[in-house]
Amino acid sequence: MVWTNTKNSELRERAQRVIPNGMYGHESTILLPDEYPQFFARGEGSHIWDVDGNKYVDMMCAYGPNLLGYGFEPVERAAAEQQARGDTLTGPSEVMVTLAETMVDMVSHADWAMFCKNGTDATSIAIVAARAHTGRRKILYAKGTYHGAAAWCTPRANGVLPEDRAHIVYYEYNDLDSLEAAFKEHADDVAGVLATPFVHEVFRDQALAEQEFARGARELCDKYGALLILDEVRAGLRLARDCGWEQYGVRPDLSCWGKCIANGYPISAVLGSDRVRKGATEIYVTGSFWFSAVPMAAAVETLKQVRETDYLERTIAAGQRLRDGLQQQAASHGFTLRQSGPVQMPQILFEDDPDFRLGYGWAVAALKGGAYLHPFHNMFVSSAHTLDDMSVILQATDEAFEAVKKTRDSLKPHPILMALFGAH
Amino acid sequence: MVWTNTKNSELRERAQRVIPNGMYGHESTILLPDEYPQFFARGEGSHIWDVDGNKYVDMMCAYGPNLLGYGFEPVERAAAEQQARGDTLTGPSEVMVTLAETMVDMVSHADWAMFCKNGTDATSIAIVAARAHTGRRKILYAKGTYHGAAAWCTPRANGVLPEDRAHIVYYEYNDLDSLEAAFKEHADDVAGVLATPFVHEVFRDQALAEQEFARGARELCDKYGALLILDEVRAGLRLARDCGWEQYGVRPDLSCWGKCIANGYPISAVLGSDRVRKGATEIYVTGSFWFSAVPMAAAVETLKQVRETDYLERTIAAGQRLRDGLQQQAASHGFTLRQSGPVQMPQILFEDDPDFRLGYGWAVAALKGGAYLHPFHNMFVSSAHTLDDMSVILQATDEAFEAVKKTRDSLKPHPILMALFGAH
Repeated sequence: MVWTNTKNSELRERAQRVIPNGMYGHESTILLPDEYPQFFARGEGSHIWDVDGNKYVDMMCAYGPNLLGYGFEPVERAAAEQQARGDTLTGPSEVMVTLAETMVDMVSHADWAMFCKNGTDATSIAIVAARAHTGRRKILYAKGTYHGAAAWCTPRANGVLPEDRAHIVYYEYNDLDSLEAAFKEHADDVAGVLATPFVHEVFRDQALAEQEFARGARELCDKYGALLILDEVRAGLRLARDCGWEQYGVRPDLSCWGKCIANGYPISAVLGSDRVRKGATEIYVTGSFWFSAVPMAAAVETLKQVRETDYLERTIAAGQRLRDGLQQQAASHGFTLRQSGPVQMPQILFEDDPDFRLGYGWAVAALKGGAYLHPFHNMFVSSAHTLDDMSVILQATDEAFEAVKKTRDSLKPHPILMALFGAH
Repeated sequence: MVWTNTKNSELRERAQRVIPNGMYGHESTILLPDEYPQFFARGEGSHIWDVDGNKYVDMMCAYGPNLLGYGFEPVERAAAEQQARGDTLTGPSEVMVTLAETMVDMVSHADWAMFCKNGTDATSIAIVAARAHTGRRKILYAKGTYHGAAAWCTPRANGVLPEDRAHIVYYEYNDLDSLEAAFKEHADDVAGVLATPFVHEVFRDQALAEQEFARGARELCDKYGALLILDEVRAGLRLARDCGWEQYGVRPDLSCWGKCIANGYPISAVLGSDRVRKGATEIYVTGSFWFSAVPMAAAVETLKQVRETDYLERTIAAGQRLRDGLQQQAASHGFTLRQSGPVQMPQILFEDDPDFRLGYGWAVAALKGGAYLHPFHNMFVSSAHTLDDMSVILQATDEAFEAVKKTRDSLKPHPILMALFGAH
């Protein structure tokens, strides 16, 4: 089928009139190559179809939520059964308790759970609970990492006041000295240390947490009486069936979960240990849809799959196939790729590509070949991604490398991206 | 059927172990009489069933989201059809544009729309957009009114820092002098005035906005170059098919919507006029599930019902029947009720009941008679509530008045409520 984008262009024009910038937030394509579709018609398994009917192997998985495949039948069935009984009612349903029990059983550090809707809800609850619990103000925050889009953390600070971040103190991830310096400066006023299990930021290589850093962060928290808060919203259930630092023997006091815990149904969670239960009982947080039963039923089934199947091992195998294949391809075409992070959450950047024009050109060519890759954001593999899907991607990327080689001299950097970089 | 609560008690015990306080947020029954069920099994039309199988005419409508009836078929069908195609995908679907167009068509002041999940998302976006747009800091906030549960607005400030509210300035609702005084004090630094269309707060009578106040607020905003932000999250679509102050000829610059706009599916919205579009284009706000298609499809169908049916007139008729019936009943039993606010969002308090023991005793008795009333929060009528439903409630309340009369001397105030009041 020939790739077209007529319908998408029409929709963009309609959207431009009634939505600021035509779209906003992390799913806006404003920083992507122009050819990237903004609007989608359908998802199934590892595939998405845009509004023009173009079919892609989807390496974004809705920016994380798709863990087991779009429309994964056992989860859809559990959700539909709950929907028939009720979703948003005058109180929660039994499934809320079941889900809390399930998560507490599964995640080693956790003794209790609170549910909310988005990752930002979870990280915001965690810092408010940490402050309530400790009676302290400072949150130590790894510079340049993403923990949500509320005023205290959004990466684009328009409309944000200095006071919104007055007690956010920045440290360098994987740099224990910088963390210790922050502790020393604010000793008795540190409520908590906030960290993602690894560094998964846009436009840069991903970096795993060093064991020494993870253990040191835990020790510093204990020494100063602060709480360790792990933000598992993006990496949770893709790194492990537990918190990401469990492999180092490091347990947080609070952990934040979201995106994929209900395979695309809207729910996020804060888990906590008994140590911090008091703080959680004292705060007032809520939302109209936080207690809705359908996403909870979907989460219970998703977590059953997580515990009882090899979803993670299959996800990793698919990711490894792609990484190996790309490594070989790049070399044979004379390019060097920087593939960083876990294979199931790959970040793929080109060496010697400071303004990202190579990566953008390559991604566009692959897009037209049926592979939806992202040129600057980490990607996500689901357990619905088969080795055959990865072969489809590799065929598209093979042609994309060839195309970039041929058009290399005419590639240009993305103008809005350059304006953004210039502004910083 | 005999009213029982065995299963609910068991669930409460399980919940106590794995959820802070056993439950949290606005659907917690911690401040309600002990007999109130915390967990529900089912909803249909105007009815809910608790986990013990007790059936109630539900006067809470999930604290607002139920506008047309639980499981209202046209909305369920639209949602199910969208679910089969996809919900949370790698980008939004066409229905996002359709929904934005629908809301912009329907709400007079609106030229654009942004979607999010909960009311707090919407009010938080509005104030960040207002600050970005004006380059100013102060938000004028009616003292004691609810605009969400983020740090800048949550009614229980544990874990909240003074800086979170450093630029929130409080005025008295319906008191133009107090609003003008706040403007004068912060003249060139007022970004916006935040107000609900009427006062709908817990433990107090509701109060409609006075026309003079609404018009005066608009004039002050214009005079000082500030934005008027109406928080329609709770009252929207129950007062009118437009903003609540349209009846006074007063249009806001920004309005916040949520709860019922998709009849229970999780979505909220910020609408804005062109005047403030610039601010909205400059901020970065997002959420994993904000662009999910199913709640948008549900919202499009809900708003079709809103525009094309007499849902509101039927809702008001049912509410009026209840108010009239209760008025008569109370008098005949020798009680005086204070029924305030619109009949479709009634607040019902007892005169001469400073510690709420009469209202609590009455509500418990009605509960056991099959009427789920709330003793201190405004209630909500849906268009699924029939006049027969109201007769069922009135039979329960008639017996409840009788019961309160008989047991009056033995009624006691709620201990946790008293502790809370004592702490303030």
